[in-house]
Amino acid sequence: MTKGEDTRHAIVEEALELVSTVGLEKLTIGSLAAATGMSKSGLFAHFKSKEQLQLQVLEEARRRYIDMVATPSFKEPRGVARLRSIVERTLNQWEEDLPGGCIFYAVSAELDDQPGPARDYLVEIQREQQKMLARSTQMAIDEGEFRADLDVDQFVFELGAITAAYHHFGRLVGDPKARKNARQMFEGMLARAQAKE
Amino acid sequence: MTKGEDTRHAIVEEALELVSTVGLEKLTIGSLAAATGMSKSGLFAHFKSKEQLQLQVLEEARRRYIDMVATPSFKEPRGVARLRSIVERTLNQWEEDLPGGCIFYAVSAELDDQPGPARDYLVEIQREQQKMLARSTQMAIDEGEFRADLDVDQFVFELGAITAAYHHFGRLVGDPKARKNARQMFEGMLARAQAKE
Repeated sequence: MTKGEDTRHAIVEEALELVSTVGLEKLTIGSLAAATGMSKSGLFAHFKSKEQLQLQVLEEARRRYIDMVATPSFKEPRGVARLRSIVERTLNQWEEDLPGGCIFYAVSAELDDQPGPARDYLVEIQREQQKMLARSTQMAIDEGEFRADLDVDQFVFELGAITAAYHHFGRLVGDPKARKNARQMFEGMLARAQAKE
Repeated sequence: MTKGEDTRHAIVEEALELVSTVGLEKLTIGSLAAATGMSKSGLFAHFKSKEQLQLQVLEEARRRYIDMVATPSFKEPRGVARLRSIVERTLNQWEEDLPGGCIFYAVSAELDDQPGPARDYLVEIQREQQKMLARSTQMAIDEGEFRADLDVDQFVFELGAITAAYHHFGRLVGDPKARKNARQMFEGMLARAQAKE
């Protein structure tokens, strides 16, 4: 990376942390200037508009998901081990990486009624994740670990339900049992999906 | 209701629709003045502060949930019929009532990192809903429809997972199968919870 790219990346990381806590709407060139100590004109040199800044923050969130969840999980054997890694790492990421939890949930409620490039890109990222989950589930069938007639689409919806519920009840309602509940739900899904002997 | 209370209630209803679409953060005395055509000073006479306004919007959302979901479901027989009514009416409410979907999800991501009276009240409402779901689940056990060793706490978490996932994948990602997936997930939970003959 050039020095300019380094700086831009450092700003985007700061912006991502801000969004994770306060949401995308409050991410303005002004609030980012306050958080980074940079001048507004300096920030404008890197991001021509609030929209450009939003898109780069979402791109950074996508990259972190790939680095922290997808890539290490793809090193696990295909099948149940890989699925388990994806679910556990997804839940871990929200506790370890971003102070405000999953940015995709944090901004979803903001963007679901606001058409535009940021919403389109967020939807694209979520569909990409769902396809990755569907492929990983199909592999568990192909490996003979899951039964051949498993409804892959339904299984992926329910994987999403685990993480959505964990995020909501764990973070918002502050239920200390949410992680245990999420894990138990996943283990139940695995048990029901197992191929019969 | 007195005329003053009528007016206040009409304003709160307008505010709730606004919040459902744009979020709690953008609900200001100014944006509400624009939406209702009232003067800022007229609105200030009803709501002394933005915080008061936020709390009254959450109270209205709670009242609607009771009117549209809880009360009609309590007319159903205890057990599976009542639980089914709660789940179906919860999903229906988001399609029929508020343009922006479930206000509790809409504002959860906004409030989860922002301590204060609005967050406290939102958490209280969600806990109240979870207790109501736990009581309704326990009734299905007491009626002999669900097996006696059912993990009620886990069942309630998974009920929440259905609605969280439906809201996220149906509304944000725009998946047309989300409702079918949500229903299938619920039917699977019911089947597994049934008392053995």
